[in-house]
Formats: sequence, C-alpha cells, structure tokens
Amino acid sequence: MDLAKTVKAYIQERELIKAGDLVLLAVSGGVDSMTMAHILLLWQKELGYTLAIANFNHHLRPEAEEEGRFVAEFARRRRLPFFLGGEDIAALARGGNIQEVARRERYAYLRALLARLGGDAIAVAHHRDDQAETVLLHLLRGSGLTGLAAMAEKDGKLIRPLLGVSREQIAAYAAEQGIEYREDASNASVKYLRNRIRIELLPRLADYNPRIAESLCATADICRAEDELLDDLAENALAELWINDDNALNKSGFDQLPLALQRRVARKAFTMIMGDQRQLDFAQAESVLRLRDEQEAQLPGGLKAYVRGNIYFAAAKPPLPSYTGAYPLLIDGLWHRLADWGWEYRAAEKQDAAYAGGFSLVVPADICAGLTWRTRQSGMSVPSAGKKGRRKLKDIFIDNHIPVHQRGGWPLLTAAEEIIWICGLWQKEVRPTLKPILIQVRICDKISE
Amino acid sequence: MDLAKTVKAYIQERELIKAGDLVLLAVSGGVDSMTMAHILLLWQKELGYTLAIANFNHHLRPEAEEEGRFVAEFARRRRLPFFLGGEDIAALARGGNIQEVARRERYAYLRALLARLGGDAIAVAHHRDDQAETVLLHLLRGSGLTGLAAMAEKDGKLIRPLLGVSREQIAAYAAEQGIEYREDASNASVKYLRNRIRIELLPRLADYNPRIAESLCATADICRAEDELLDDLAENALAELWINDDNALNKSGFDQLPLALQRRVARKAFTMIMGDQRQLDFAQAESVLRLRDEQEAQLPGGLKAYVRGNIYFAAAKPPLPSYTGAYPLLIDGLWHRLADWGWEYRAAEKQDAAYAGGFSLVVPADICAGLTWRTRQSGMSVPSAGKKGRRKLKDIFIDNHIPVHQRGGWPLLTAAEEIIWICGLWQKEVRPTLKPILIQVRICDKISE
Repeated sequence: MDLAKTVKAYIQERELIKAGDLVLLAVSGGVDSMTMAHILLLWQKELGYTLAIANFNHHLRPEAEEEGRFVAEFARRRRLPFFLGGEDIAALARGGNIQEVARRERYAYLRALLARLGGDAIAVAHHRDDQAETVLLHLLRGSGLTGLAAMAEKDGKLIRPLLGVSREQIAAYAAEQGIEYREDASNASVKYLRNRIRIELLPRLADYNPRIAESLCATADICRAEDELLDDLAENALAELWINDDNALNKSGFDQLPLALQRRVARKAFTMIMGDQRQLDFAQAESVLRLRDEQEAQLPGGLKAYVRGNIYFAAAKPPLPSYTGAYPLLIDGLWHRLADWGWEYRAAEKQDAAYAGGFSLVVPADICAGLTWRTRQSGMSVPSAGKKGRRKLKDIFIDNHIPVHQRGGWPLLTAAEEIIWICGLWQKEVRPTLKPILIQVRICDKISE
Repeated sequence: MDLAKTVKAYIQERELIKAGDLVLLAVSGGVDSMTMAHILLLWQKELGYTLAIANFNHHLRPEAEEEGRFVAEFARRRRLPFFLGGEDIAALARGGNIQEVARRERYAYLRALLARLGGDAIAVAHHRDDQAETVLLHLLRGSGLTGLAAMAEKDGKLIRPLLGVSREQIAAYAAEQGIEYREDASNASVKYLRNRIRIELLPRLADYNPRIAESLCATADICRAEDELLDDLAENALAELWINDDNALNKSGFDQLPLALQRRVARKAFTMIMGDQRQLDFAQAESVLRLRDEQEAQLPGGLKAYVRGNIYFAAAKPPLPSYTGAYPLLIDGLWHRLADWGWEYRAAEKQDAAYAGGFSLVVPADICAGLTWRTRQSGMSVPSAGKKGRRKLKDIFIDNHIPVHQRGGWPLLTAAEEIIWICGLWQKEVRPTLKPILIQVRICDKISE
C-alpha cells in the first residue's frame, strides 16, 4: 500500500491530475503500466478523475495481439473505456530506427485519441530507472543539457505518475498485490541500446555508486529546470533578434549574447527554418557562432548561413513552389491526395476507430457541403482569439515554427472565402453536433522524407 | 609537429596567453606535462611569453624526489627558472581523501608561487581524456550542471593548453619527438576512483559510442557556458533578494524566480553564510524551496532556515565570539598563533622559498616596526579604490562571501589606526622596496576543521 500512497502524494504535489480530468492510460500489459493502472484506479474516486485505457500494437511481436486482449479484458472487467491502436512499425521504419518510429507512432496515436476523447492527460508508466537510462542514453550520444534533462513528470498533456519510484518498488508492489501482467520478451534483448544500458551498463555503474539511479535522476531534475529557464531566455532572444522578412539574425545583438544563448539561438533559428525534427549538432552550432563578415557555413539539409552585416540563412534549393488550386472536401472514408501539396486527407462520419498520426478536426455534417481545401494566398488572415482584429496566416506559421518551405503547400480548409481550419495550427470554433464528421490530414510519406 | 601547431592555434583562439605574459608550468615529469613544456618552449619566441617551471612533491611515492630532479634538470638545460614545492600529503590528509588534499595543496603552492613571481598564468597539462573522466566522475556523484561543466581551458589564472587534444595524440607526439618523461606508477592503481574510470569505465563506454571522449567533452563545453550564464543570473538574484541585516532572503521575490534560480540562490545563500567549502546537496536545497510560512528546515553545519514572511537563516550555535586584542608583528621567521583568533602568521625577509597555502603580503622592511594585528571593530573602513570616500569592512566581508562566524576573528594588519591589510581580501597599495618582508597568514588546523 505504501507505493500507492507514494504515487498519490506525487500526483498531488506535482499537480499531475486535477479533479474532473479524463486521464488516458497508455497500457502495454507489462508490470509497470499494469501497476500504474491499478494504482490510478485505487484513487479514482478520492481524487475525482475518470480513466480510459489505450493499448498500441506495434506488430513487432506475435504475442502483442494477446497482450492487447489481456489489457482489453482488464478494462472490460473494470468498466473502463478501452481503445486499441496499431501500426506496422517494421514496415514504416523500413530498416531505420525501429525504436524511434515505434515511439513516434505510439505517441501520435495516443495524442490523436486524447484529442478525440476531449481528454486532459495521457499517463505513461515511466519510472525512476527508465529516467536513469534516459540520462545515460543522452550522455552517450553527447547531448547537452537538454538531453540530460531527460523526462519530465509533466510535459504538456503527458504525465508520468511513477517517475519518482523505482522498478524494484513497482515489482514488489505488483507481487504483493497479485497484479497480473504480461512479460515483454523484447525487454531482455540487448539488440536495443536502451536495453543494453539497463542490463549491462547501469549494474556496472552501481559498482562506482550504489545509488546511481537516484544520482542520475537528481541530475535530470536539476538539468530540466535549468534547461527550461535557458530555453525561455533563448526563445525571447530569438524573437528579439530575428528579422522576419530577411530570414536573418541581427548580428550585433547576437554577438552581445552570452555564449550559452548564442548556441541556443543558433539552434532555434535552424529548427524554425528547417522544421521541428532537425537539430544542429554541437560542431554545426559552433560554426554559426564563429562566422565573421563575408564568411559562410554549410548546415545540414542544404541550408547555408552567411554573414553580410547580419547572419542570413538561405536554402541551397529554392523553397517548394507555393501550390495553388482548390479541392472540394469528399466525405467517403478514403484517403485523397492533395495533388502536389504533399498532403492527403480522409473524411468520414466519426466513429471510435483508432487513428494514428497527423491532424484531425471534427465538424458538423451540415456544414461540410460547402468546404474546400486551399493553400495560402498573400494577405490571408483569421479572426484573432480576443475577437479584436485579425491574425495574419504568416504569423501563425511563424509562431508554430513551420519551416518556410512547408508553408506554401499547407492545407487550409475554407468555407466560402473564410478559413475554418489551418491543419493542426488553428481552427474556427464550431458548435457541437449530433452527426459529426471526422476529417484527418497527414503529410504524404514521399514528401515527409 | 601537427600537435604543436594544434596547441598553438588553441592558445591563440582561446586567448590563453598574451605576449609579455610570464607562464608558470606545473610539471610532474609525466608524459603530459613534459609534452606541454616542450610545446610551450617551441612557441615561446613567436608568441612572446616567458616560462618558469614548478614541480610539487606530494611525498606519496619514493620516486617523486627523482622525478623532481629530472624536471629540475630539464629546466636547467633550457635556462628556465625552476621551483620545487612539497607537502607531506599523507600526514595532512590523516586518512581523509588523499587525492583531494593533494590537489588542494598543489594548487595552493602554485598560486602562492605565481603571486610571488608576479606571473600571469599557471599552465597545467589536462587533456581531452582527463576532461571526459572528470565529467563521468561528477556524473557518478550526482552532480548537476556545475559538475558536468568540468574543467575550463581558462579559469582565472589557470590555463589548460592541452584540453583540446587527446592522450593518444600526446603520447604519439612524445614518441615521435623523443620527449623524455617519467612514468607515474600510481596512475595504474585502481585504488583511486578517477583511475578506475580511466582504466575500466571509459573503455566500456566506448563499446556504446566509440567517440565517447569527444561526446563528453562537448557536453562539458555546452554545460560550462550554460552554467556560467545561470551562475551570473543567480548571483544577481541573490544580490537583489538578500536582506543583509537580517540574514534573510526576500521570500516574495524568491517565490517569483524560476525553479532553476531558486535552487541556485538557495545554494549561494548557504555558501555565503557557511563558507566557500560547503554546499547544499540536492535534497537540502529542495527543502529550502518547499518551506511554507512558519516552517523550518535543518541544514548542514547546524544552520536552520525558517520562514516568517521572509526566509531567515540562523546558526544553531551562536557565531564564534569576536576576538579582540592586538599583537605586534614579529619578524623572526617563526609561526605565531594569534591566540583564540584561529589564525597564525609568520614574517621573514622575503626569499624564494616555497610557501603553500594561506595568504601572503610583501611589505617594505622599514614600515614593519609599527605594524599591529587586530580584529574588526564596528564601523571600520578602508579607502575605496576610486579614492572617493571609504568602503566598510563589513561590505568587504560580504562581497568576499566570508561567513559571518569567521568575520570576528579575521586578522587585520594595521599601521597606527589605519588598516593596511585585510588578509587575502584587500590591501593598501605599498611602494616596492629593496628589502621586502614576506608576511604569511593561515588558518590554524584546529579551527579549520
């Protein structure tokens, strides 16, 4: 019972869940997530939240299907809503980093599901030893502070109620309470770096410091708070120094920043231009910092940084053309390609089917007849939130760090001439309805590469 | 020759040495420091600095004496000034951490020697692999960002010209150039944690990432710059929030700080009160952050933090009494105890003898007759640097982070009623002289414990 109380105190202290919240539990069927589910069920009434359960099948092991049924049965007995998602990860990864793709798809599914449910939080069962592994994983890869910060107990809508307790404590509680679970055989495979760290490296480090996991978690805690502060400072500095129309940084202001902020601002500028998945490594960021007038540096993805008074960024290739044209919205449950835009969409009556990845919107059926897909045209805007004046489409792209080359083909759903949805970035408020249509949009594989 | 050029470029890029500088080389006789000495000799004329060499005998190995003679002979042949220091480290450590004491005494000797010579920099031969070991050492101990920042290529007067190159590069260069050196057998002993990290742990980590040393050094570089920025921010925040007369922090201001700065300000306040050698660990700093009104936290060293509107700090024991009395300065080359003050001093005609630790001052012999040791009295002050007005003694203690309990016994050297030296913190300008007297002051062992 002690563990359950520890977790409850952790949830309350860190304000992970509020009364009235709908919490979606990500449950694989393993000991960690089953224990999390049991403990959160225990405090459900007292803390006043409601629960739903999701299982995601990566189609990497034949047993995964049975594990899904096991979790479904657990949910059915406790009268909890259950959702089953899945993707053929091996096919999607095509020989790339399977762990990475599995993680991406699983979280995309959970986030889309949470949005559909109108839920408040996704709870995952990461614990203290997972955290220690994450710190080491990042350290071995040469990550700076941001990597060492590892995982937060609360990261947007993602919460980690078990982050303060150890694997050993969880196993002991599960044994004591007779919690049933399924063993994931792939956890024992040293094929994956994370498993090697858990199985081989951490026990060795315990020879040097028996409390190594606590030490690494304390390091992560310290680094996370410091990383957040530095990230805020860098975000402000970037906003101040960025010259929008020139794709440039004000160099004299940049030169006055402390070294730590110069590095972070260079990284942030790159990510803003090239998209969220890309980062400058250490040496590349340094090369931007050392640029003197008339010099240039080659950055990944064909981007070039050069100094002519200010620090300019220029793509080697011209940005993708701004696609034009209009497509009426078809509601037939099939995926439709938006020609050269690099996107595809699907619209159908809303059901509880799983949907992994991309953006989605629910609209009343009766307004769908007049809806049309378009791409941006200069001067486009949407009503601003405070109902005073309007917000430029361009500013929404900038605020969301959408790289320049993606803006021209970004799908907008319009009714008459008015934008009602900028996929994933903004949407007009629509009234609830009895017959909702679910519209899903995703980037085509070929373009996202 | 490549390594010598790499090191030269590193020195110039990072501005480690200026033309005209006198650089004191710390040379143990091992391959790293001998290679450093050879390379710095090579560029001496071109870069326009002068060199001196120091060797420090820890009296831990019988071979150390021969190694000192070997370094002395190297210096003699190249007509470089040579200085030999030493302490019986095993006796000083009395079963404590020998490595720690050795390091402290060695650096105290080098710094005192540099001051005596009027030199500009102490060069030590730490290289990239030492840096990687230092990062791991701190990580294993659960250090936060400050520890991960590890060693800087320039830290005050200490410089590390080899920090950018690897152990392997140094060994290859030494072999190629036929550089003679002495092997330190204690480097192979796994008795010391650092050696175990070098010999056992780092090769294992290379299984995970063959470029682990570079990765760890990049991490240190990133962390160091970020640590410096955060330290500045915390220093400013402390200055703003500290209420001098109350030994307290303004709580409403403190509560508005980001978490990262709260932790750092709590640590800094503690160190300011308790002295430079002490630090709050992670859990202790957190306990200060979580204090609500009317609560209190016990901190190390008998310090208590409690909240009554603001955050107050109070010693469990009253501070040491403010000692009074006066002692005339005796110039007889013997150590004299300053009664209960907890200090002792020695004064003699200045020679080139080694002196390790403590504070020292050189004054002309003809003013020594009237000099008297005193402790502080309320309202004492000294002329301020700009010659406008005066500076309070109290403010000098605060600026130098001298803990409250040490201020009452801090030795002041006075001529008539005027302070001419606040040991280690401030001194009146004195004219140079042909017959200088060296005054050395140190805290007595019994009190410093």
